Amino acid sequence: MKEQEFLKELKELDLLSQAMGILGWDTQTGMPEKASEYRSEVDSYLYGLYFEKKVGPTIQEAITYFGQHPDELSEVGQAAYQLVKEEYELQKNVPNELAIAASAATSRAHTAWTQARKAKDFSLFKEALAENIRLTKELIPYWKKEERTNYDVLLNQYEPNMTVEILDNVFSQVRDGIMDIRRQLEKGTPPDTTILSREMTEAQQRKFISKVITDLGYDFSRGRLDNTVHPFATGINHNDVRLTTRWNEEDFSMGIFGVIHEAGHGMYEQNIDEKFEGTPVHEGASMGIHESQSLFNEIIIGSNRNFWEKQYPYFQECAEGTFDDVSFETFYNALKFTQASLIRIEADSLTYVLHIIIRYEIEKMIFNEEVNVEDLPTIWNDKYEEYLGVRPQNDLEGILQDVHWSGSSFGYFPSYALGYMYAAQLFHAMEKEIDVDAVLASDDYSEIRQWLTTHIHQYGASKKPNQLILDATGELLNPQYLLDYLRKVYFSVYQIR
Amino acid sequence: MKEQEFLKELKELDLLSQAMGILGWDTQTGMPEKASEYRSEVDSYLYGLYFEKKVGPTIQEAITYFGQHPDELSEVGQAAYQLVKEEYELQKNVPNELAIAASAATSRAHTAWTQARKAKDFSLFKEALAENIRLTKELIPYWKKEERTNYDVLLNQYEPNMTVEILDNVFSQVRDGIMDIRRQLEKGTPPDTTILSREMTEAQQRKFISKVITDLGYDFSRGRLDNTVHPFATGINHNDVRLTTRWNEEDFSMGIFGVIHEAGHGMYEQNIDEKFEGTPVHEGASMGIHESQSLFNEIIIGSNRNFWEKQYPYFQECAEGTFDDVSFETFYNALKFTQASLIRIEADSLTYVLHIIIRYEIEKMIFNEEVNVEDLPTIWNDKYEEYLGVRPQNDLEGILQDVHWSGSSFGYFPSYALGYMYAAQLFHAMEKEIDVDAVLASDDYSEIRQWLTTHIHQYGASKKPNQLILDATGELLNPQYLLDYLRKVYFSVYQIR
Repeated sequence: MKEQEFLKELKELDLLSQAMGILGWDTQTGMPEKASEYRSEVDSYLYGLYFEKKVGPTIQEAITYFGQHPDELSEVGQAAYQLVKEEYELQKNVPNELAIAASAATSRAHTAWTQARKAKDFSLFKEALAENIRLTKELIPYWKKEERTNYDVLLNQYEPNMTVEILDNVFSQVRDGIMDIRRQLEKGTPPDTTILSREMTEAQQRKFISKVITDLGYDFSRGRLDNTVHPFATGINHNDVRLTTRWNEEDFSMGIFGVIHEAGHGMYEQNIDEKFEGTPVHEGASMGIHESQSLFNEIIIGSNRNFWEKQYPYFQECAEGTFDDVSFETFYNALKFTQASLIRIEADSLTYVLHIIIRYEIEKMIFNEEVNVEDLPTIWNDKYEEYLGVRPQNDLEGILQDVHWSGSSFGYFPSYALGYMYAAQLFHAMEKEIDVDAVLASDDYSEIRQWLTTHIHQYGASKKPNQLILDATGELLNPQYLLDYLRKVYFSVYQIR
Repeated sequence: MKEQEFLKELKELDLLSQAMGILGWDTQTGMPEKASEYRSEVDSYLYGLYFEKKVGPTIQEAITYFGQHPDELSEVGQAAYQLVKEEYELQKNVPNELAIAASAATSRAHTAWTQARKAKDFSLFKEALAENIRLTKELIPYWKKEERTNYDVLLNQYEPNMTVEILDNVFSQVRDGIMDIRRQLEKGTPPDTTILSREMTEAQQRKFISKVITDLGYDFSRGRLDNTVHPFATGINHNDVRLTTRWNEEDFSMGIFGVIHEAGHGMYEQNIDEKFEGTPVHEGASMGIHESQSLFNEIIIGSNRNFWEKQYPYFQECAEGTFDDVSFETFYNALKFTQASLIRIEADSLTYVLHIIIRYEIEKMIFNEEVNVEDLPTIWNDKYEEYLGVRPQNDLEGILQDVHWSGSSFGYFPSYALGYMYAAQLFHAMEKEIDVDAVLASDDYSEIRQWLTTHIHQYGASKKPNQLILDATGELLNPQYLLDYLRKVYFSVYQIR
């Protein structure tokens, strides 16, 4: 077999996947409301073609042949081969009936989850969740390589080489650190947030944030920004990386930070080395690394006083008078108000990670210990009370809030917290080379984007997350940078000395 | 072979074609400007899968088997079989090399056409056009069934059962009739058109026209309206029929009549009987019939005094004051100003058909007689002078204005004129059952849409155009209704008695 044949097969898979990407984007942005049944038929058909090819004879032959002749592969071919082989080996032992049963169970669970949310009643979701857990536990032995615990297996599907041992250690530091910061902030002065609800139209917000993300390095000639219900970014190909958002005219911070966040994902996809295009290497290194890029924008840049001081006059201009009487200090401080809340996706940048740690601890209990599914709501509520000091009044604002478990995406949640820690760690490393405050006070942010491209973006999935972070920052995951950063930002806003 | 197998194959072709439809729509509405090369790769790949399947063993076997066992097909199966067989037989004798050569020639011709337009110089397009003509002439014998002339063969690809004999007859009546109307209008009073250039924002126009097309029967829950450069409507499936338009804030009539026009195409696609979905029967009967539906909206409804009188207050409301001082008479009459012009797509409803007749006569000369390609610009210009009294000053406003010949779409132009004639003839028949003026003065237009669905839309491509028109109107194509209608509308506006 020639490398060319292998790459051609990957290219065709990628072309199908681009088509599915556009259809998926369309489903979530513009598809007429009544078209969803017809759309699922198209999606299933294309996915069928894709799947058949992905496990088809050409790929199988390539895995065998290049396993024996690795020297016949170019650099790109080797990186692609590695990913294809890992994916193949992960799934190759799974009995077909089990894979089908697990997939069918998630469909039923999604329906049950939707109904349970309507009734705000976990008991309607309980059995479907138990079935997802049971089938995932059945799958783990087939997936397992050298991981130590069951939950390590799940974790590794989203963050290669991450372990429970590492996470237990970093999460306990982060949990204690954030809880400590929160205790200290009680002695400070919370900012006035009334200006956050001043009306800003969608058009005004869009005008402002489009300029901001262009400044940050998102390239609109290779992307676009649409409205949706559940915001996401999608990289169709190198020159077509789309962002989506939702707007709230009575809370501009939702849309504005949402777009900054998605633009971080977008900038990553736009700057992966084009040589990897048409292979699975032209993707993010992991969910955690992807989140590190969106959170670098949202949390690191988005908390920076100089950044906002520079952008505020344009913000005022776009708001057409609404903020003319608001001083920069009042504006900036309002953005960094923090308060414990029940809903993860509405949490602020200080408390967010605690939401993740709660989910991590529960998932680990489910897969590494024995836990009764019907006890989960109480466990959930107790942890919220312990870590955040708030207790859900019903399951909708508690355990039913996230879609992930209905889809058996166990092991996914830690990625969000890893993104926070990676972002702060990258920022710390960047500051050794670049005076970030000074750059953000200037008209040209390109040094920042360039640093991220050099150290992260360009590699795509050709390096594992731990290697990427080590190479970029000189050390492995270190949660102290996040804590230092949060302490600095919030102590300043809350006037703690 | 079972019917089910045949229908499943058609369904899969349809699913691929839906995916291509969304990609095509995206290319023309929202794709980032730099994504076009990547997009062509996806398009080509999907088209390859589609084409392979379309001429593949299942379809071939179905053609043979059901040719011998027609009784084993249901009503839908029979209608689908008929179309598949016609398409197959049209292409089956064409040598592969000739098909490839013809396709490659159109790519080159499109490039040459674009360059010639920039230079306003036909000589840069001449050779490529000659090659398109030569290859089309080579293809005609392979396509030919019982048609009398070469041009009949081309005509039939867009309008089955239409002939040069019929068209020569109707076009000469229409040409003489319109030229006669134009002569008489010279004695009348042309309306004042200054109000047409009053500014109306895109948002105001969109608000107005969205309500109007909803009134006319376009269903937004199964469609949407986007911006584009070259407006079109596309039926992805029964519940996803999309319109596009371009807006001119200094000429509201462009966007508003454009959307009314595309909504006519859209209403057709939305109302084809759903039983035909997933087969080639769920399409318009022909280009001419499709145009009859868009032109029914644009010309018949769009020229109706009662319709505009009813809609004008809402138009004024949407324009937020800009038209408050304009009387309804002034507004309506301005819409129906007529003037000879050089560019087809900017022509008004009286002179448009003359542009088509010119193209028809030239295409017929090319394929049924011998004509020197380099003489075409002069022939073109002479005909414009003779029929419309205007002469192009350069090739861009003359023979280079249309894309069709660069794509070898010879025989397509007459469809536009057929659409005009069919629309007027359908209107005449409708009036025997419905008091259209009264309906358009009311709040409920549904009777009109219902009549069109009953007589045209529902059948999709299960009836040939001539049969559809005969069944709907009781007679074959009759151009007098168009002339009567144009005379009535324009004589009233120009105050000719």
